[in-house]
Amino acid sequence: MRTLEWDYQYKRLKIIDQRVLPSQFEILTLDNYKAVAEAIRSMAVRGAPAIGVAAAFGMALAAQASSASTVEHLRKNLQVAAQLLGKSRPTAINLSWALKRMLAIANKPVEGVLELKERILMAAQQMADEDVATNRVIAKYGAELIADGDMIIHHCNTGALATVDWGTALGIIRLAHEQGKRVHVLVDETRPLLQGARLTAWELQQLGIPYDIISDNAAGYFLSSGKVHKVLFGADRVARNGDVANKIGTYMLALAAKDNDVPAYSVFPTSTVDLSLPSGKEIPIEERDAEEVLALQLRGKAVAPQAASARNPAFDITPHHLITAFITEKGIIVPPYEKNLAEKVAAQR
Amino acid sequence: MRTLEWDYQYKRLKIIDQRVLPSQFEILTLDNYKAVAEAIRSMAVRGAPAIGVAAAFGMALAAQASSASTVEHLRKNLQVAAQLLGKSRPTAINLSWALKRMLAIANKPVEGVLELKERILMAAQQMADEDVATNRVIAKYGAELIADGDMIIHHCNTGALATVDWGTALGIIRLAHEQGKRVHVLVDETRPLLQGARLTAWELQQLGIPYDIISDNAAGYFLSSGKVHKVLFGADRVARNGDVANKIGTYMLALAAKDNDVPAYSVFPTSTVDLSLPSGKEIPIEERDAEEVLALQLRGKAVAPQAASARNPAFDITPHHLITAFITEKGIIVPPYEKNLAEKVAAQR
Repeated sequence: MRTLEWDYQYKRLKIIDQRVLPSQFEILTLDNYKAVAEAIRSMAVRGAPAIGVAAAFGMALAAQASSASTVEHLRKNLQVAAQLLGKSRPTAINLSWALKRMLAIANKPVEGVLELKERILMAAQQMADEDVATNRVIAKYGAELIADGDMIIHHCNTGALATVDWGTALGIIRLAHEQGKRVHVLVDETRPLLQGARLTAWELQQLGIPYDIISDNAAGYFLSSGKVHKVLFGADRVARNGDVANKIGTYMLALAAKDNDVPAYSVFPTSTVDLSLPSGKEIPIEERDAEEVLALQLRGKAVAPQAASARNPAFDITPHHLITAFITEKGIIVPPYEKNLAEKVAAQR
Repeated sequence: MRTLEWDYQYKRLKIIDQRVLPSQFEILTLDNYKAVAEAIRSMAVRGAPAIGVAAAFGMALAAQASSASTVEHLRKNLQVAAQLLGKSRPTAINLSWALKRMLAIANKPVEGVLELKERILMAAQQMADEDVATNRVIAKYGAELIADGDMIIHHCNTGALATVDWGTALGIIRLAHEQGKRVHVLVDETRPLLQGARLTAWELQQLGIPYDIISDNAAGYFLSSGKVHKVLFGADRVARNGDVANKIGTYMLALAAKDNDVPAYSVFPTSTVDLSLPSGKEIPIEERDAEEVLALQLRGKAVAPQAASARNPAFDITPHHLITAFITEKGIIVPPYEKNLAEKVAAQR
């Protein structure tokens, strides 16, 4: 099954609950848009592309539940839903990109309420299908950069679970593996929520791709050993100058890659680019609950002292000069990023 | 109580078991040198200065247990013990430094077996007392660099628990706090064994020093925020050119400090310097059991998939050019390190 799927029989959204993987595989059924917002907030569904599509289906649920008798009223209901869904997580631009797209569709001339409800659902479904298609194209471009025998460090989870299906950075590794290239992945465990150790390792294991989990701290050691060929990660928002907001830790990983002349690639659909922000400084960084840092146990014992306090920024900004290239569905984008991003993204919109 | 203490009544070594802190405070009683080697290997006692002194007391236990009737035979017993103790952990030079010092004492002319046994114990006790005194001097030099209002990132644990008492890098923060300077510590949790979240947070809490635990990944975010004034960490071995082997993650932390012009200080007693090695490349890096990476639980659930594999290097090398200065009991040592380290350390030996 896909990471998120519309259930046409019962008219609701089904998602894989990523909070309990890999020890449990559970499907969450979401039948109203507030539940979708909560699933995004609590990271039952996560990954920039996946939360964009989840929000789109949230709009479909809002449309479906609306008792509006006029198109105007339905549009207002949709605006209310978009506002709530848009607040669920602040950093990934894909969320507001998806909501804007849905609202634009809502504002097109339409015959009546039923037709608009149908259009909204179809648009969400189209967005989901496009995401999978986009990822396959990204993988095709990216796999050309992967050589037989490559050792690759991968941060966070950018696999099928971070998207509707297939994945972005991990999708490249998957395609290279399918092409018969031998690859070995060093999986950053990705504290605090351990998407690497929990999700990426699980996906790689299912795909039969060799890997080792490493603590995020160990990436620098392996990079300086000379045995790592590439570093791959996703993106949650890319500013006009090419600065990348991505899962916390990406910045230090990219610094260590640069210090050892190992190429570092950020992989994303161009919907992740936010041309309205001049640089990474303007990207809002979500700080999440301290509990996520403190909830850890080691060998069955609590790690932090009782009443310990913690800080928990979920993303950081990797300056564009640390990134070798962007891998997108529009091809591989190299510096100067300001010029080349604008060209590729403007061409699309 | 000190991190490790000789029990004169029962003639055995007592140590605080650092594997179960902070949820339990347990004292381990070690009555033979093999138990000491195992306590070092399993990290019941850890921290470069502490394991040096633990090994010295291990030699005292070996001497005490020896049934040798001649000094020559006792010396052989001590060599066997030193060999085993020396293998318990490879990276921190303090261990072999302490053992060499004990063997040198064993080889001095002596009246008889009983006198030699007594001398070995006295030498170990002296080393323990010296460690505390050394740390107080380090703290005095280091605290001069700390300003009122400083926000400090600290990696791993370098407090009382990493030494016999008082601590090295954390001892500086402690003295600055006692001097009335307001400091706030961002505590790198320090995966995989979480010495920061478990031990440093616990020590800071007891000392009443404000702190927040952060995932190691978050250090770069805070450094680039412009709100961090200093980065402090210890050292497990320092090569002739000033390259520092320290707890895994130090290298990426120092890179991020450098990238943001935040001073990064490595704090250690000069017994941590190994002039026999030209650079960090020659320092042996311990790789520990994968279980330490995989043993993690989050909210009561195993993190990694079953049968996951992992790599677990325990240290990395921070190139000397990333370090602003060394803080030692011989004063603050600045570049050029090759020259200045040799002068300070040679003067001592």
